[in-house]
Amino acid sequence: MFLALGASRATAASGVRYGRAHMLRVNSHYQKLKAGYLFPEIGRRVAAFAGENPDAAIIKLGIGDVTEPLAPAIVAAMKDAVGEMAERSSFKGYGPERGYGFLIDAIREHDFARRGVELDPSEIFVSDGSKCDSGNIQELFAADAVVAVTDPVYPVYVDSNVMAGRSGPADDTGRYEGFVYLPSTEDNGFSPAQPSERVDVVYLCSPNNPTGTAMTRDYLAGWVKWARDTGALIIFDAAYEAYITDDALPRSIYEIDGARECAIEMRSFSKRAGFTGVRCAFTVVPQQLRAKLPNGETASLNAMWNRRHSTKFNGASYIVQRGAAAVYSPAGLEQTRAQVAFYMENARLLREGLGAAGFTLFGGKHAPYIWMKTPDGLSSWDFFNKLLSGAHVVGTPGSGFGPAGEGYFRLSAFNSRENVHEAIERIQKAFG
Amino acid sequence: MFLALGASRATAASGVRYGRAHMLRVNSHYQKLKAGYLFPEIGRRVAAFAGENPDAAIIKLGIGDVTEPLAPAIVAAMKDAVGEMAERSSFKGYGPERGYGFLIDAIREHDFARRGVELDPSEIFVSDGSKCDSGNIQELFAADAVVAVTDPVYPVYVDSNVMAGRSGPADDTGRYEGFVYLPSTEDNGFSPAQPSERVDVVYLCSPNNPTGTAMTRDYLAGWVKWARDTGALIIFDAAYEAYITDDALPRSIYEIDGARECAIEMRSFSKRAGFTGVRCAFTVVPQQLRAKLPNGETASLNAMWNRRHSTKFNGASYIVQRGAAAVYSPAGLEQTRAQVAFYMENARLLREGLGAAGFTLFGGKHAPYIWMKTPDGLSSWDFFNKLLSGAHVVGTPGSGFGPAGEGYFRLSAFNSRENVHEAIERIQKAFG
Repeated sequence: MFLALGASRATAASGVRYGRAHMLRVNSHYQKLKAGYLFPEIGRRVAAFAGENPDAAIIKLGIGDVTEPLAPAIVAAMKDAVGEMAERSSFKGYGPERGYGFLIDAIREHDFARRGVELDPSEIFVSDGSKCDSGNIQELFAADAVVAVTDPVYPVYVDSNVMAGRSGPADDTGRYEGFVYLPSTEDNGFSPAQPSERVDVVYLCSPNNPTGTAMTRDYLAGWVKWARDTGALIIFDAAYEAYITDDALPRSIYEIDGARECAIEMRSFSKRAGFTGVRCAFTVVPQQLRAKLPNGETASLNAMWNRRHSTKFNGASYIVQRGAAAVYSPAGLEQTRAQVAFYMENARLLREGLGAAGFTLFGGKHAPYIWMKTPDGLSSWDFFNKLLSGAHVVGTPGSGFGPAGEGYFRLSAFNSRENVHEAIERIQKAFG
Repeated sequence: MFLALGASRATAASGVRYGRAHMLRVNSHYQKLKAGYLFPEIGRRVAAFAGENPDAAIIKLGIGDVTEPLAPAIVAAMKDAVGEMAERSSFKGYGPERGYGFLIDAIREHDFARRGVELDPSEIFVSDGSKCDSGNIQELFAADAVVAVTDPVYPVYVDSNVMAGRSGPADDTGRYEGFVYLPSTEDNGFSPAQPSERVDVVYLCSPNNPTGTAMTRDYLAGWVKWARDTGALIIFDAAYEAYITDDALPRSIYEIDGARECAIEMRSFSKRAGFTGVRCAFTVVPQQLRAKLPNGETASLNAMWNRRHSTKFNGASYIVQRGAAAVYSPAGLEQTRAQVAFYMENARLLREGLGAAGFTLFGGKHAPYIWMKTPDGLSSWDFFNKLLSGAHVVGTPGSGFGPAGEGYFRLSAFNSRENVHEAIERIQKAFG
């Protein structure tokens, strides 16, 4: 297993005087991290296989990366924005750290007001990506805040808190001491109950990465009630919101009464509009959201995030923000909806084809992810290897998302129709 | 003074049950932050003045933001990149977290190899901005690392370490307990001596923001020797490197022998190519760079930064990276050099015009900043107000960069030639 941090003894040959009395000490919490981030590890295995099998036409259904080109409305808006940057009269230098008003207003109207949620412009913070936001948000919490995550879980929530020292070391299963893990299993319908122990912050993701489960309104309301009752904060990651196909399901946690007082929500343009290489996202931090100071008073999390954002971030690229705003134009809405529908048809085909091959499948109805049980009790990584060698298809081992993901496997619906058909055929042949 | 964090007592009306026993506790170090980030405060004062004086044609020489449009070579490259994103065959999703090879190779060749510095591709980390990098780099250090900064200083170095808890509270002058401050004054030629007390990390910036001073080779070599002798790390911020006009001055700290074992360097496309609104920068973390673990072994700072970068960042925008790479094309090099020369002619005019008006001036020869003494012993903010009301010119109060900046004022050379001439004329009239 790849170790992120090499630790080596002093070597005279290196020229570095390790023996000297004083030396900068590092943040030793990084040493607790179990392994390289999941996707680089997959990349290394795939590269090794491809090296040994140069003729294999590998189909990647692993990392959740979009494959469709940017919608024409977005392309036109970004070309126009580049053009603006070419003229002195329309050139844009530093923008507002929290994002341009034209984008914030479009977000407020289309993503929230139309669902009955009124947000103030000051509650929206545009960024260069949800991975950054979900990794950085923990900077606002006390060093000893108790963090709860589902298991399996998007690794960034966990790793960013390990790096900040909110955990002890990991055990053999990869779970870190001090975190509260909420197993998401077939038994509980991938919808774990609220923890009974004291928790300060819980990370929730719906539609879920990796299980593909979308929360119902009642289930999410249960979390909001729990957070309000216990004084905990919910970090609600709605990066896959656009993939919800049932209008009765909540798209924003703020559709639940009381959530403005206990929840931060994160959204991304990555999956809804193909922005994984373009980079734009936003985080909502309601003005009502407060947390405790050591002196018993409370602090505004909105003010704190604003301070963080304006001290360590300098705004998302103007060109990118113009592209993001075009997502909300009439043409942009129509084109990006068609892209999402295209991927969801892939998901439907995968569910149908793999179901016919006898696999047990979850997710893929309101999310671009299929969460499948590995056949024959194979471990997730053993199935990864078998799928790669037997069908030349790459997926993501469920155990990479946590020990409760062991025996599961994530397939993403992001690919061309041809590749999805081909992958289904190969998997049926190899495992059917 | 604007307080970043509102702290308020429980109010029954808010609907939040502040009285409940448990509540998430925040990172209380944010409470130590003295004031809002300098430039938002300037923005508020300017907006207030503009509101009261709607006819005043305010010239902004305050925030260091470029004004010239993007160079044609960059515009063409970004338009092409947007076009690539519009086609399935050339669409780019997630890129390498540390940046695309085409950009890293251009950086290695043009910024380093041509100055005799050989860097491995793994030593360069492309990001969305130097403000992010310089704010995030402290995550690698132990929580109790002793941080040294010059005074005056770019506020991000200080604030990011305050937020992480490496300081006590600020005193009345704005200095935080626990940091080592190195006054940069007229007496030491804005080149403070190395500290005698124990220091783990020092932030150096050359050409300097705000004083406009560029370090000589001998002076920088003194820092490298000090760092190697004491086991300290240098964070070398070279964001203004392109403004060096004397080829004998070092552009990279790695031009100094031994720096690979004690220094991280940061560079930005913001000022050299007008990318303040486009967003691209990079950080160099040499493979030799190691620091101490609690068990006495050492860890690679390159591996740690790579872990940080790949866990909390998802790569800079592909379109932006294509624009950055175009900076190194023959046309891009010529066009961006012409832009820098344009700004440096502004700096020369400001030095000449303000010198003729009797001001005492520093900087502006290898940096786009003029560091001027305020006249008549005025405080920096009093001169800010006087310059704004008397000449309708905005600058940056030196005290905003630290107490040793009191009595100084920063003017930036980023503006049109017309505005620079007009600003000089107005200042000569008001103060000459």
